[in-house]
Amino acid sequence: MQSSPKRNAFYAQSGGVTAVINATAAGVIETARAHKKHIGKVLAGRNGIIGALTEDLIDTSKDSAAAIAGLIHTPAGAFGSCRYKLKGLEESRAQYERLIEVFRAHDIGYFFYNGGNDSADTCLKVSQLSERLGYPLVAVHVPKTVDNDLAVTDNCPGFGSVAKYVATSMREAAFDVASMAKTSTKVFVLEVMGRNAGWITAAVGMAEDAATPIPLMILFPEIPFDEAKFTAAVEAHVKRSGYCCVGVSEGLRSADGKLMAEAGTKDAFGHAQLGGVGPLVAGIVRDRLNYKFHWAVADYLQRAARHIASKTDLEHSYAVGKAAVQLAISGRNAVMPAIIRKSDSPYRWKIEAVPLEQVANVEKKLPQDFIGADGFGITEKARAYLAPLIRGETFPPFKDGVPRYVRLKNVAVPKKLATEFKV
Amino acid sequence: MQSSPKRNAFYAQSGGVTAVINATAAGVIETARAHKKHIGKVLAGRNGIIGALTEDLIDTSKDSAAAIAGLIHTPAGAFGSCRYKLKGLEESRAQYERLIEVFRAHDIGYFFYNGGNDSADTCLKVSQLSERLGYPLVAVHVPKTVDNDLAVTDNCPGFGSVAKYVATSMREAAFDVASMAKTSTKVFVLEVMGRNAGWITAAVGMAEDAATPIPLMILFPEIPFDEAKFTAAVEAHVKRSGYCCVGVSEGLRSADGKLMAEAGTKDAFGHAQLGGVGPLVAGIVRDRLNYKFHWAVADYLQRAARHIASKTDLEHSYAVGKAAVQLAISGRNAVMPAIIRKSDSPYRWKIEAVPLEQVANVEKKLPQDFIGADGFGITEKARAYLAPLIRGETFPPFKDGVPRYVRLKNVAVPKKLATEFKV
Repeated sequence: MQSSPKRNAFYAQSGGVTAVINATAAGVIETARAHKKHIGKVLAGRNGIIGALTEDLIDTSKDSAAAIAGLIHTPAGAFGSCRYKLKGLEESRAQYERLIEVFRAHDIGYFFYNGGNDSADTCLKVSQLSERLGYPLVAVHVPKTVDNDLAVTDNCPGFGSVAKYVATSMREAAFDVASMAKTSTKVFVLEVMGRNAGWITAAVGMAEDAATPIPLMILFPEIPFDEAKFTAAVEAHVKRSGYCCVGVSEGLRSADGKLMAEAGTKDAFGHAQLGGVGPLVAGIVRDRLNYKFHWAVADYLQRAARHIASKTDLEHSYAVGKAAVQLAISGRNAVMPAIIRKSDSPYRWKIEAVPLEQVANVEKKLPQDFIGADGFGITEKARAYLAPLIRGETFPPFKDGVPRYVRLKNVAVPKKLATEFKV
Repeated sequence: MQSSPKRNAFYAQSGGVTAVINATAAGVIETARAHKKHIGKVLAGRNGIIGALTEDLIDTSKDSAAAIAGLIHTPAGAFGSCRYKLKGLEESRAQYERLIEVFRAHDIGYFFYNGGNDSADTCLKVSQLSERLGYPLVAVHVPKTVDNDLAVTDNCPGFGSVAKYVATSMREAAFDVASMAKTSTKVFVLEVMGRNAGWITAAVGMAEDAATPIPLMILFPEIPFDEAKFTAAVEAHVKRSGYCCVGVSEGLRSADGKLMAEAGTKDAFGHAQLGGVGPLVAGIVRDRLNYKFHWAVADYLQRAARHIASKTDLEHSYAVGKAAVQLAISGRNAVMPAIIRKSDSPYRWKIEAVPLEQVANVEKKLPQDFIGADGFGITEKARAYLAPLIRGETFPPFKDGVPRYVRLKNVAVPKKLATEFKV
């Protein structure tokens, strides 16, 4: 694959955003700017891949170096993201061909797709089709997902910051509940993200450690909910410690495999009530144990919380963006820069390119030996894995008491194609 | 009132705890330690006033200066708090007399009660009874409440940090939703605390400012919920900006005055569903507008979030603790150190003693002119009031990725009374 002469690059953010995905964008754009011999402009897809399909491209060169650097401390997707899955090459052939058509119109020789499993698959297929069509393109997938479920890479940019948020939040709430337990709340339930794999759920376990023990229970999506066992364990904690904290995955399932949160109910006003496994578990505590309780559902707060992002995570995020461009320039096609852990303590890591075939559509599960014997806690092995990922602080600048996040100009690139494309 | 010779002090935390109430405790204890001529030991009530009633006292002198200084960065109540309201002097006479009995047994000449309206009232009554019984006691109420509803004082320690948390969290979530709105979530709902007065709800409005406009709506407990008006406004925001963020008070009420959250429902498992006005409002958005939505309920996370406490709030919190001791030493009985604002910008403030009669059981409402004309936003006047309260950061020390909060030894003082007291 020849990457010279100089051509433009396309970058898009895919799926749920994170506290640090914009740091990856900064890594891509700043590194591309540093290699003007090979890369012309970086054009971003407005609202992700949809921007490419509809030829709604953003000219990132219109934003200053300071603005791009500001992305490093700005959460969420600066160019917009989307949930739009391209299917197989035959099934979604029109979409793939349209992508190549748009890339050709804008002389795009580099395709950087920043997302999870699905987008790794899309990236691979774009690469395959461009080859088949004889269109020269280097396609590099850039990893991102709070779910931490990408294969090969030791961890996924975005995860470490959510992990830090949930561990910190649960620790803080535990101090609160401990204060109140004598006459008030005895059980606190925090619902966290991660529908299919318990990576984020496991991170709640980092709220406690040897110096700060907390009567903490974790309900993993991997362990079917056993109400009797759960309530007995909560009761034992309350009897011993006076209170109990519970971290529960939004993806908690009952013994028959159903999502616990999918409980269709109506409130007194006739509105269908939304799930929320947090309140559901809290309700069980009340009904079975008659303890006073509180519950929280962090939802987007956890993945948007740039103010408490992990420094390690931020460094990973920038590094994969930078590496993606370096790989592309050296002609490495259909790869993903993965984070490879060299040692736990001291924590050492490096970036290595892995073929997309090894990543696309593969889901990395939480290892069984990360979950303690009783099914309600994490093991030392989990701690050794999680510890470096949440380590280090990297606070954003604040102004007037709130973080000062950047918004880019997001200037549109003039369209060159006569045809419209419906998504 | 004579405060010499040297006597012990009693300190107790009351009601819901905050991110910075321990800074007030540090202010009390450190200032008392600096005045050993007047004050012997500071004895703390284990779990608040209950500790005094049951003679379950903590000898704070057993904790090092470093540990007490650590309280400044540690959330929640280091000695435990409680929800236990003493009623009128006649109705609860046995309790008041028991307090004096315990104080006498431990030579307590100073009573510092750290709480909200109720505890100001209790503090006043303790002062009155001690006088009637001829027991020399200086009683000082130390303000604290995230609800910000204490009279006379410009603001209440604890509030500024919650305000900063909700403003920051909503800003971060807004960036997330803006990224996803094209194909996914269009409306995000964040439920915040403050059942009776919309102080915290108003603080959500600080998520946006001139530099960072956000299509934001606020549902105050002061404004009866008007579903038609609300959904029309949400729809207008989504049509104009692509998305909409909603901050809602847990105390939102319907036109007939009922708490919206008190909707008794059962889920599919037969468990009574807990309220949560956040999910309820989100359900209305779905049913009436068919927009994709997400909702979060921050609950204890917001008032425990020491990691994002306001520096101004922290300074107030320490200052009222310090001032309480100084007032007590100078013999000022039945007063509360209040925060008096001297100017908005530059923000200047001082502490002034106010008689407890002016504070006890009085609830300070959110001024009507803090709420915008449409009932869904805050005014410039509200901004001028809130801005200095959320300003400044004061991050706690972190270790291994999570804040390192202190736990005290909390060594019990040997009991001196033969009688037990049931609470």
